[in-house]
Amino acid sequence: MAATTVSLSTSMANAIRALAMDAVQQANSGHPGAPMGMADIAVALWKRHLKHNPADPLWLDRDRFVLSNGHGSMLIYALLHLTGYALSMDDLKAFRQMHSKTPGHPEVGITPGVETTTGPLGQGITNAVGMALAEKLLASEFNREGHVIVDHRTYAFLGDGCLMEGISHEAVALAGAWKLNKLIALYDDNGISIDGQVAPWFIDNTPQRFAACGWNVVGPVDGHDIDAVDAAIAQAKLSADKPTLIVCKTHIGKGSPNRANTSKAHGEPLGAAEIALTREAIGWSAEPFTIPADVAAAWDCREAGAAAQAEWEDRYSLYVRDFPALAVEFERRMAGDLPDNFADISVEAVAAAHEKAETVASRKASQIALEHFTAKLPELLGGSADLTGSNLTNTKSTPNLRFDETGAVVKNEAGVGGRHINYGVREFGMAAIMNGVALHGGFIPYGGTFLTFSDYSRNAIRMAALMKQRVIHVFTHDSIGLGEDGPTHQSVEHAASLRLIPGLDVWRPADTCETAVAWTMALANRNRPSALLLSRQNLPYAAKTGADEITKGAYVLSNPSDVGFKKKDDKAPAAVIVATGSEVQLAIAAQAELAKDGVAVRVVSMPSTTVFDRQSVKYKSDVLPAGVPRIAVEAGVTDFWWKYGCAAVIGIDTYGESAPAGVLFQHFGFTTDNVVATVRKVLGK
Amino acid sequence: MAATTVSLSTSMANAIRALAMDAVQQANSGHPGAPMGMADIAVALWKRHLKHNPADPLWLDRDRFVLSNGHGSMLIYALLHLTGYALSMDDLKAFRQMHSKTPGHPEVGITPGVETTTGPLGQGITNAVGMALAEKLLASEFNREGHVIVDHRTYAFLGDGCLMEGISHEAVALAGAWKLNKLIALYDDNGISIDGQVAPWFIDNTPQRFAACGWNVVGPVDGHDIDAVDAAIAQAKLSADKPTLIVCKTHIGKGSPNRANTSKAHGEPLGAAEIALTREAIGWSAEPFTIPADVAAAWDCREAGAAAQAEWEDRYSLYVRDFPALAVEFERRMAGDLPDNFADISVEAVAAAHEKAETVASRKASQIALEHFTAKLPELLGGSADLTGSNLTNTKSTPNLRFDETGAVVKNEAGVGGRHINYGVREFGMAAIMNGVALHGGFIPYGGTFLTFSDYSRNAIRMAALMKQRVIHVFTHDSIGLGEDGPTHQSVEHAASLRLIPGLDVWRPADTCETAVAWTMALANRNRPSALLLSRQNLPYAAKTGADEITKGAYVLSNPSDVGFKKKDDKAPAAVIVATGSEVQLAIAAQAELAKDGVAVRVVSMPSTTVFDRQSVKYKSDVLPAGVPRIAVEAGVTDFWWKYGCAAVIGIDTYGESAPAGVLFQHFGFTTDNVVATVRKVLGK
Repeated sequence: MAATTVSLSTSMANAIRALAMDAVQQANSGHPGAPMGMADIAVALWKRHLKHNPADPLWLDRDRFVLSNGHGSMLIYALLHLTGYALSMDDLKAFRQMHSKTPGHPEVGITPGVETTTGPLGQGITNAVGMALAEKLLASEFNREGHVIVDHRTYAFLGDGCLMEGISHEAVALAGAWKLNKLIALYDDNGISIDGQVAPWFIDNTPQRFAACGWNVVGPVDGHDIDAVDAAIAQAKLSADKPTLIVCKTHIGKGSPNRANTSKAHGEPLGAAEIALTREAIGWSAEPFTIPADVAAAWDCREAGAAAQAEWEDRYSLYVRDFPALAVEFERRMAGDLPDNFADISVEAVAAAHEKAETVASRKASQIALEHFTAKLPELLGGSADLTGSNLTNTKSTPNLRFDETGAVVKNEAGVGGRHINYGVREFGMAAIMNGVALHGGFIPYGGTFLTFSDYSRNAIRMAALMKQRVIHVFTHDSIGLGEDGPTHQSVEHAASLRLIPGLDVWRPADTCETAVAWTMALANRNRPSALLLSRQNLPYAAKTGADEITKGAYVLSNPSDVGFKKKDDKAPAAVIVATGSEVQLAIAAQAELAKDGVAVRVVSMPSTTVFDRQSVKYKSDVLPAGVPRIAVEAGVTDFWWKYGCAAVIGIDTYGESAPAGVLFQHFGFTTDNVVATVRKVLGK
Repeated sequence: MAATTVSLSTSMANAIRALAMDAVQQANSGHPGAPMGMADIAVALWKRHLKHNPADPLWLDRDRFVLSNGHGSMLIYALLHLTGYALSMDDLKAFRQMHSKTPGHPEVGITPGVETTTGPLGQGITNAVGMALAEKLLASEFNREGHVIVDHRTYAFLGDGCLMEGISHEAVALAGAWKLNKLIALYDDNGISIDGQVAPWFIDNTPQRFAACGWNVVGPVDGHDIDAVDAAIAQAKLSADKPTLIVCKTHIGKGSPNRANTSKAHGEPLGAAEIALTREAIGWSAEPFTIPADVAAAWDCREAGAAAQAEWEDRYSLYVRDFPALAVEFERRMAGDLPDNFADISVEAVAAAHEKAETVASRKASQIALEHFTAKLPELLGGSADLTGSNLTNTKSTPNLRFDETGAVVKNEAGVGGRHINYGVREFGMAAIMNGVALHGGFIPYGGTFLTFSDYSRNAIRMAALMKQRVIHVFTHDSIGLGEDGPTHQSVEHAASLRLIPGLDVWRPADTCETAVAWTMALANRNRPSALLLSRQNLPYAAKTGADEITKGAYVLSNPSDVGFKKKDDKAPAAVIVATGSEVQLAIAAQAELAKDGVAVRVVSMPSTTVFDRQSVKYKSDVLPAGVPRIAVEAGVTDFWWKYGCAAVIGIDTYGESAPAGVLFQHFGFTTDNVVATVRKVLGK
């Protein structure tokens, strides 16, 4: 048999192919097609362009790399191993096994060098847009003449699947509008998706589509010609004011004689026989999980990476010398630390809310809190999905973010750029971009839409929770209280269903004070996303002695002794009414009404069930004493509330109606009378 | 003051403007901008092209009209009133009031002539794609040489908001791929969205983008030149193999001297003063809610509509004469009636499952049921979002839907066209297209993806429930049981959160038999969507005497007497284990284990909580006897299960992991031992 002569570069690509097919085979599960098809592209990018240091995966000025087609996880695992990250061959052998560093899809926080968790298609490229945006904003804010300390690119690999997902359109449109020239996407154009040759269901002219959104399009190039891809990347890096799409024509499962160019290559092991044939076809004779020394040496990026970082550190040390305060601030921001005086800042916000005791909508209360926080925390990067005036996410400190014709951030006379983003009507894109911003570091992103449209962004909210990212969702118009817009816009099931997402904190504050606390908690929660559910309509301030217990998610807002009973009745009320948000006022009114007839009731305000659930058993039973009947009131589905052992739940288990809010609350039984009657019924009196 | 001379056509448009601004003013809520901006376009379409009969809004061969920018609801209400539908001036005066026929956003089923409920942006145009697809498929199936009985168009109005939403990209891509030449979208290109002039966040070259997806693009035309829009529509109707986008340049709030071209025109009343100025500017002197006789007469479409329908009915009567059986079938299909022998068909499916008693994954059980149903029900129109081989939505009776170069449906030798749709990786688009198909009539659409990606389509699922449409979602890979793909793909909160959507039936069957029943119920449920949650992994057949009670959503699968106790123990078991889907086998195993120690346990299988919740109090207490401790087992979040008064819930309140399924079930406590131990703990023994 004739020996196949293979260049070292192609051998480097073949190393990826071999590792991918062998690891998938060993796991008997996984996706060999994409790693084998994109192996040559990966050589061009990772060896010739990507700025990274395997010894320090968190180097601040590294290029970001996103594998948007996350099912091809063995591609990035192979790359991380081969270039010298702390990902051993044993880690690769444990591909897709319990608690390994090589899970089925790449997960940030698990594997050094993985920048974001991908798999749900379309979100990776959208995260990348967020990363590129963060880079551009930080560069604009922190770089100084002769001191360029933020200067890196964001690269994304993506496939047909990502491009079919609607969210990719949202991401592409915004990247174009924002002129993110340092974003470079490499498209694995192989014409195959799981259902087969894509032609019958994917006829998009992708280059034309990207051009229509203000992108620079390079190619198509032969995605198996490493030099051609290399040149395309070099060309992309020259783009001054547009993001670039490089179209790479590839063959899925490249190298496999019988599986290449078929959908069977996508998501199942090749099988031992086909692997043997592939080894032969590509001239790869090494044993599984063995890399020939010359190939290993060619891949090793540790020295070059260390040199690159050292060069940056030299530059950075000059920055530290010339701009010491800025450097401290830059490091704080990138570390995600809040200002040292954050406790004071938040106490001020809450105290101001107490003092003013205003009756305003909680969306307005949110804006009041935001005025305070955005003035003190430059890392707050706000936005709205085309509902700024409704969500009230903008403040005096957050001018709209705009870019000039050159792509530079427009600054005001004080030299400050915009910090409020008009995302357009793109809820899902906004959420996944915020995830990318948070992952990049330097900002705490928050963004608004109506609560009902959290449905559109739901999977990105979930991804933020899975990735433990501090992203804050401002969901206003949180119930039938939005009124006339009707059932398409009225949230009924949303509060409850968001609370089911593991790792997400959900707040539905009742007044200005609870809203300020909710913001404080969301900001301080560095490893969790938060959702703030806010009313369209005015809510009265609920008198309370202190705000300390609001931070526990639920607290005794009013005890029997607050409405004329003896102190001892506080320990044994006849009933506890638990309410959230706009329904707390009903609970308070019902308590007063019942007091007239000698029924001693406690009112518990529970702005955050998720936070309350994490409290001690003692605190929980102090708030909700055993043996005392509980009645929950929330303008949403009732199913959720039974977990608190309620005797009755006043809620709404149908869709709303189009009518003024007051009419709706009456119609659906959110009245003092109904709360009183329900408590009486529970108590049998 | 000089009198303004206005043509009758423009007066017709002004009638819309006046009704819109007056109704919004009276409601003190609503969106005047779009109706005023699109009024001229509406005259061109509704008066000169739309095939409709106000006296019969359900005429089978009417053109379909979708207001994708649903906030402009006064536009369609005005049109329906003016053209002669059963929508009175008093109805218009009740705009946005409780139980009126004119809710804030158009709602199908509430207002005669409204074809779909719109408001959540991007979904209307996607519904329209589904309607146009249904028309094309029905025409292909039922029309005969010389007998064209299905021949109508689908028109959609849409604005910038719809085009920013990612789902619009999914819809546009599929409409192009499917060559839906009878779909005509009119784009209200006014350059304004809620946040203002869209330029900073919406730079898409929309014509180029649509062209990139295989559309015919007409214009831009002046959207205030009725004749120009008329001509553009005439041109669009000539398209033989492409859907058409007509770009209409308009001014939002056209006619209002101070509000036109501003975002303030979008979503708030103009105010009395500006309305007076507008009346003067457009030369409209009629009182609010009054239409001059000449304008009213010009708008009246009743005569022309009746004539159009009569002409069709003449043709249809010839069809009935020549193809009587086909006509009966066509009418059955359009009425949404199941075949007369549906009861027999479903009994056969369930009986076959019982008889074979196979151990297969419930996704496979679903395919087995589908083989049966698709062979008998030609209205079943399947599909998958690029996971056909995983969702198992395809059957022998449902070849893939394909179109030839001319745009015609490809048929096999038997003359039968495809009935399984490769939607590509477009979950949200698929769901909203299915809604459109169901709304059009003639088909029962079903479509598959992984359960976790129900997040992507969630709002369209909600819309199906709100609209009471029979759409069936096949959600496979329903838990950590999917194994190695890891937490991004593993559903944890999804079963529970889908159950919270009002009006949606959710099934999580335990075996082949329950799966067949779930399909039967979903098909028979003509006013509800259903979601079938199915396992990737094999599930054993659960022995049971009959299937009747499965239809009640929950039933006693195994009583103490089935595992050796006396009959009398059935009435007073020590505990009830409630389980769904893949966890039912654990409940059965635990029951047997506990029986060894003399603990008498009942096992309740609860494939559908939503269906069970609708049963009588007696049935519910027969299944879950009062006073007997309940232990729920489901591989999902625990919060949901407390509503059944459980003493303990075995579930998973964190994200999953990437590992083989067996390892995961063990790790997360889904083991017989843990169920046994939990029951013991509850019982204190």
